[in-house]
Amino acid sequence: MTAIEVKNDHIEEVKGLIEAGRENEVAALLEELHTSDIGRLVAALEEDEAVKVFKFLPPDKASAVLLEVDERRRKALISSISSEELIDVVHEMETDDAADVISELPVEEAKQVLDGIDRQEAIAVQKLLVFAEDTAGGKMQAELAAVHETATVEEAVEEVRKKAHEIENISNVFVIDKEGRLTGAVPLDKLILADPKTPIITITKRDPIKVSTDMDQEEVAKLFQKYDLISVPVVDHDGKLVGRITVDDIVDVLEEEIFEDFYKLAGLNTEARALDSPARSIRMRVPWLMLNLCTAAVSASVVKFFEGTIEQLVLLAVLMPIVAGMGGNAATQTITVVVRALALGELTFKNARWVLMKEVFVGFANGCLTGGLAALVAYLLGVNIMVGLLLFLAMIANMMIAGLIGSIIPLVLKRFNVDPAISSSIFVTASTDIGGFFTFLGLATIFMKMGLL
Amino acid sequence: MTAIEVKNDHIEEVKGLIEAGRENEVAALLEELHTSDIGRLVAALEEDEAVKVFKFLPPDKASAVLLEVDERRRKALISSISSEELIDVVHEMETDDAADVISELPVEEAKQVLDGIDRQEAIAVQKLLVFAEDTAGGKMQAELAAVHETATVEEAVEEVRKKAHEIENISNVFVIDKEGRLTGAVPLDKLILADPKTPIITITKRDPIKVSTDMDQEEVAKLFQKYDLISVPVVDHDGKLVGRITVDDIVDVLEEEIFEDFYKLAGLNTEARALDSPARSIRMRVPWLMLNLCTAAVSASVVKFFEGTIEQLVLLAVLMPIVAGMGGNAATQTITVVVRALALGELTFKNARWVLMKEVFVGFANGCLTGGLAALVAYLLGVNIMVGLLLFLAMIANMMIAGLIGSIIPLVLKRFNVDPAISSSIFVTASTDIGGFFTFLGLATIFMKMGLL
Repeated sequence: MTAIEVKNDHIEEVKGLIEAGRENEVAALLEELHTSDIGRLVAALEEDEAVKVFKFLPPDKASAVLLEVDERRRKALISSISSEELIDVVHEMETDDAADVISELPVEEAKQVLDGIDRQEAIAVQKLLVFAEDTAGGKMQAELAAVHETATVEEAVEEVRKKAHEIENISNVFVIDKEGRLTGAVPLDKLILADPKTPIITITKRDPIKVSTDMDQEEVAKLFQKYDLISVPVVDHDGKLVGRITVDDIVDVLEEEIFEDFYKLAGLNTEARALDSPARSIRMRVPWLMLNLCTAAVSASVVKFFEGTIEQLVLLAVLMPIVAGMGGNAATQTITVVVRALALGELTFKNARWVLMKEVFVGFANGCLTGGLAALVAYLLGVNIMVGLLLFLAMIANMMIAGLIGSIIPLVLKRFNVDPAISSSIFVTASTDIGGFFTFLGLATIFMKMGLL
Repeated sequence: MTAIEVKNDHIEEVKGLIEAGRENEVAALLEELHTSDIGRLVAALEEDEAVKVFKFLPPDKASAVLLEVDERRRKALISSISSEELIDVVHEMETDDAADVISELPVEEAKQVLDGIDRQEAIAVQKLLVFAEDTAGGKMQAELAAVHETATVEEAVEEVRKKAHEIENISNVFVIDKEGRLTGAVPLDKLILADPKTPIITITKRDPIKVSTDMDQEEVAKLFQKYDLISVPVVDHDGKLVGRITVDDIVDVLEEEIFEDFYKLAGLNTEARALDSPARSIRMRVPWLMLNLCTAAVSASVVKFFEGTIEQLVLLAVLMPIVAGMGGNAATQTITVVVRALALGELTFKNARWVLMKEVFVGFANGCLTGGLAALVAYLLGVNIMVGLLLFLAMIANMMIAGLIGSIIPLVLKRFNVDPAISSSIFVTASTDIGGFFTFLGLATIFMKMGLL
């Protein structure tokens, strides 16, 4: 099947066939589809339909599909098949995926499955189960091709032959010493070109890039990106080769980490999803809203402080949201570029000072431009020229505050090793609300005292 | 060099050595570093220092470094070396990278370089220059290993031997028919295990996943992710094999696309960076701020409409930002999950209705919770109970508006094939500002007319 022709889904077709009881045709259709497309299909169908489709799949396809769907759907599918069938399905998986699936099972069932699969595989899976999911250990698979330093090219090829059926993308044969410590790697193209009798050590790349089992998945992902890796060997604390991580697992990590940054910026639990149940959505969002309520109360108390000023000129209440809102928007722009630059490592504490000063200056300039326009329009609409001046000055001040706060908050959080994105936008908007109300109403009070208003 | 031990930078060290004129030591240090680390170093140094470091690099390292730095630094580095040196550097690059660099040169210099490099390479680069940068054609490299359908395994291995020095990650030998059309692919591990005399066709995977030159890079990236690809062949409109794209180029595309979504959400030009010059930052941000000024003017006019109501009770001006701000925050939460779900394909027009209704319900529930708390606190602080009730009702209404608008705006944009993220947050916040002011002040006016306030 060529990607150019991939149909986006067969959902309606399958729904119709199931409803009509034309099971043979469902089975025939499934045979034609790529497992990744079946995975999407099973994810998109209603639960009862998904279970029916799942039952048609042979263990190899069923195992791939289980890994494509979300945890809830996976539970439903697993509980629709017998323990024996589940053992066959898990047996088809690579050890890292098997460990992920088994870790989600109830303890009793997990034991049953571990007892049912191949003993060697069970040991490998059990070893993986001890690693935290978001570390290199949790992401790695135990399947790999490795030979001893004293091996020949011929023996390395034999190792590839033995492992070819259980490893999907062999790109390297790893080389280990007699304690099992990683000492090198041989890319497959080197292996293909060497004479069979050559000692492997002569074509080995010594001391390849490697990661330790407890390295955070985000660090691993950055390494893949930095060095354009396809796969990386994983070693334990003694330097022993215990697994490898391939780039396809890392692509998902990268995507996840970027989304998380922006989730945190928006004041969202990183687990929140559009398709969550209403109860779950409420539970996940309400803490941030409560926090926002507190900051909003502070801004309101600033306005309250100037109640007397507003009483004298209600027009101020009309214009003050403009000052606050423009500051909020400018701050969001600043914080977004700053969080991105921090994530990519472009912004460090060395150039932080320059960025900070630049952001304040940009705030000043944009404040002049937008504040000038706002004041001009207000004047043309017949607003007192002094109120226009007030608007102009307050917008400049608040957009400078926006530039300062929008860059300083993520930098300070980063300095204290807190994720620089975390709920930053709530604090930033609070600052620009407070800053906007305070400068605008404060200046107005001064103007009034000076008899200008 | 092992990744576990990678030092984050050598910037201060190199700066010191350059200042002290200890050039030999700079050269010695550079020899030890991975090119990717040199790239970071050259990007982080001042321009004059970077140029000095760059001059120490042999063509192969210089070519890698040129690709690591941003366009501005690249221009500075290129103009610091002679045309002859540049030709040597470009010669070391893969065709896709060479095309990228040459496309940035002034026409005269581009011609000079194209004339200087190997004729075959120049033809390949020129072919790549015609493709738009964000398509499969623009991302692909012309270097690949391919054999005719009638070849033997031995001939395929010979092809790998010929290409091994110019291709970094050979993972497949492609198979073509006599018109040059792609008909299959042989993974390297299959090749290694087959007998040299075997016809290649017997171990060929027929009809592999492929992309056409004009496919958008985002589509290509999704394909890599969906099928866990390491590399993909690229074909022209006649099905002829013209290049291949490897996963390392795609990782950057994926990251770019996610960042872009959130940039657009924040009302930012996707080209904006934290390290841009102030002038560039102002130019990039001011259009969005002007747009925001327009929407802010609309919200202000809503408040203006209720000026008389505020005049009677200035406390309303104190509390109204709370209603608007909470709505804005709830809407940001909604739009963030919705934009993510649209990007990942979890949210389609089929389940859109459910998500929309859920978001409105979640808004209602969160409005009850936070509005209830706000009203209670206001009451305890001695605010008139009717004003508390007003706050409660307006917060519920505005957070329902937030749920509705936060989900409907990206969906509607998507329906009309506009990027669902584009400046959504400006429109969403405008809606919740207007909604908040209107419901709160509108209800207050009604309460007053009914004699409740």
